[in-house]
Amino acid sequence: MNVTVRGRTRHYRTVTFDPAQKAVLLVEQRLLPHEFKIVAAKNFRKTAAAIHDMVVRGAGAIGATAAYGLAQGALAFHGHDLQKFRRQVETVYQTLKAARPTAVDPVNAMNQVRAAMRAGQTVEERQQLALAAAEEFANENVAHCKAIGRHGGWLIRRGMKILTHCNAGWLAFVDVGSATAPMYAAQAQGKKFHVFCDETRPRSQGATLTAWELAQQGISHQVIADNAAGHLMQCGEIDLVIVGSDRTLGRTGEVANKIGTYTRAVLAKRHGIPFYVAIPLSTIDWKLKSGRDIPIEERHESEVLGAWGALTSPRSKVRSPKSAQRAYVRVANPTSGARNPGFDVTPPELITGIITPVGIFRPKELWGRRYELGMAD
Amino acid sequence: MNVTVRGRTRHYRTVTFDPAQKAVLLVEQRLLPHEFKIVAAKNFRKTAAAIHDMVVRGAGAIGATAAYGLAQGALAFHGHDLQKFRRQVETVYQTLKAARPTAVDPVNAMNQVRAAMRAGQTVEERQQLALAAAEEFANENVAHCKAIGRHGGWLIRRGMKILTHCNAGWLAFVDVGSATAPMYAAQAQGKKFHVFCDETRPRSQGATLTAWELAQQGISHQVIADNAAGHLMQCGEIDLVIVGSDRTLGRTGEVANKIGTYTRAVLAKRHGIPFYVAIPLSTIDWKLKSGRDIPIEERHESEVLGAWGALTSPRSKVRSPKSAQRAYVRVANPTSGARNPGFDVTPPELITGIITPVGIFRPKELWGRRYELGMAD
Repeated sequence: MNVTVRGRTRHYRTVTFDPAQKAVLLVEQRLLPHEFKIVAAKNFRKTAAAIHDMVVRGAGAIGATAAYGLAQGALAFHGHDLQKFRRQVETVYQTLKAARPTAVDPVNAMNQVRAAMRAGQTVEERQQLALAAAEEFANENVAHCKAIGRHGGWLIRRGMKILTHCNAGWLAFVDVGSATAPMYAAQAQGKKFHVFCDETRPRSQGATLTAWELAQQGISHQVIADNAAGHLMQCGEIDLVIVGSDRTLGRTGEVANKIGTYTRAVLAKRHGIPFYVAIPLSTIDWKLKSGRDIPIEERHESEVLGAWGALTSPRSKVRSPKSAQRAYVRVANPTSGARNPGFDVTPPELITGIITPVGIFRPKELWGRRYELGMAD
Repeated sequence: MNVTVRGRTRHYRTVTFDPAQKAVLLVEQRLLPHEFKIVAAKNFRKTAAAIHDMVVRGAGAIGATAAYGLAQGALAFHGHDLQKFRRQVETVYQTLKAARPTAVDPVNAMNQVRAAMRAGQTVEERQQLALAAAEEFANENVAHCKAIGRHGGWLIRRGMKILTHCNAGWLAFVDVGSATAPMYAAQAQGKKFHVFCDETRPRSQGATLTAWELAQQGISHQVIADNAAGHLMQCGEIDLVIVGSDRTLGRTGEVANKIGTYTRAVLAKRHGIPFYVAIPLSTIDWKLKSGRDIPIEERHESEVLGAWGALTSPRSKVRSPKSAQRAYVRVANPTSGARNPGFDVTPPELITGIITPVGIFRPKELWGRRYELGMAD
């Protein structure tokens, strides 16, 4: 998407490959929203470190990063010995896989690159095929997000007030995003609307990343405390809810997403407000038979007991990000502990529709439409 | 309640009067949870400043502070001229009233003190009556909270997991609290239970004040992000919800309380979890005919866009409060704004019962029982 830095507007993807430097270029997401910076990972180990250290996060974005990282590692090989080349590629593969061991996207992305490489007869051919396959993976990711926008954009009418939770924006993908795709599509059609971003405690991705994205695109928006969504719905101030999903069960239509998503769905149902989930096909899990089988990660209590931000005074706007020192404050009573579940599961009866690159489906329809939706079995 | 500071345990009220110093003694609530300190307001202007500057907050606590402040101002008068004395008392009254102009509790409390003074024939008699009336107001506040505990304590069974929102604890009253009163009563009966404290963004009173209170009383508890309550209910981890209320409508049974209360009530209803509201009689509004007429304060956006806490590292426990520097961090994107409604209104059909000092009532019963509940008309 377009980003304006010091008055200059340019188009960026979260992940690209620079063939001249043989470097993976990444938006340094840990500095956002206070600073926008592109960092270059100049070899596959640095690319793996960027995944591990959360320079890049979000399923689509780390998938593409791993795909480029595998190509980068392959390109770094000098010589013509296919045997040695294969060993090098295996090392690269394992290094990138180990960077975020529980994520499936890097593995799926790298498998796609590796499969494409097999058509090459020489090291050089395989190197070129690897890079082409990584580019294809990234381009496909963008195309899928744009398709979500084409299908979901018509849900947004002029003057609507939309609620979103966490960040399922372009920063979590290669470009465009999932939950944000319908918004960017509607904006491109000239529609004006307003977005409420749940701050999304404890990690505040709504207040930091989604708010930053929408501000960059010039979309009218406000941050709200997670407690405020119910009240705004009561007051008739929310017309539509769109969220993303980390894992959607193809068999049941259940949606696992950032903690608090379930609460928004319950509230939306009570108020008769349409509740949509926007997803790329890769996040559909065709195997699991029940949402109760989805493991819910319990994260470190320090996230709940405090907050990260830029040190400043409450009434000043930190418009000069360079001067903003990142700091952690302990908010809670220092002798208290916390529970910190990272995700929750929303049942299908609370979901109006699932916006996918191939159309909008009722959650219970997914299984019946599994071949259209690309179930690979 | 009992507070342990550097190994010594003592009983404190949030507000007391020291006749020797003629000072109002207050728990300095702005330093909590990182430091516990009693400050002395040595004249009525300093007492008014303490109310204004939020050294003391919570309806019951500021009511008692104003009552003591009026007595303090009366006691500071030297001489026998009743005319001059009345003028002095009027000045004190207006000064204390202006300290928190929208609150009704200081005014009600001071009116009670002023009415009691009228029985005195001399300045000295009136001074003594003022102090006695202020003490009576504070003692009554404590007695009412204890009565809430007697009625509500039996709702808590051994091993229960209880959710509470914001702080309706002893820090908001003179002692014991409203939502916490049943917990302290159940603890006194030897029952073990666990409390989840919603952190209660944006001002985090649950993470700071309620967690501190429960830690001091040795009650098992954990802080949770406001987003987590729904998930915990889904998992069967919450058996009971108890919250306080800023204003309860006697005619309709609607409850105005801290933003996010309504969301907890909607979730509790869906999961069949009892939802109770604990209130002193003074917070019942017998006049308003609809919750829609309750003005919802829109607070400053800086509360939502950032957080206050003690500067530290995320993994360290700040156990040495003196070393903890209070700081504000801007969490959100610096170019985004926020909505910040302070309260919401919960309709009676979501409320299992209202715990009052005179018994537990269905919300719709309040009007029929208005004479028991002390409607003064």
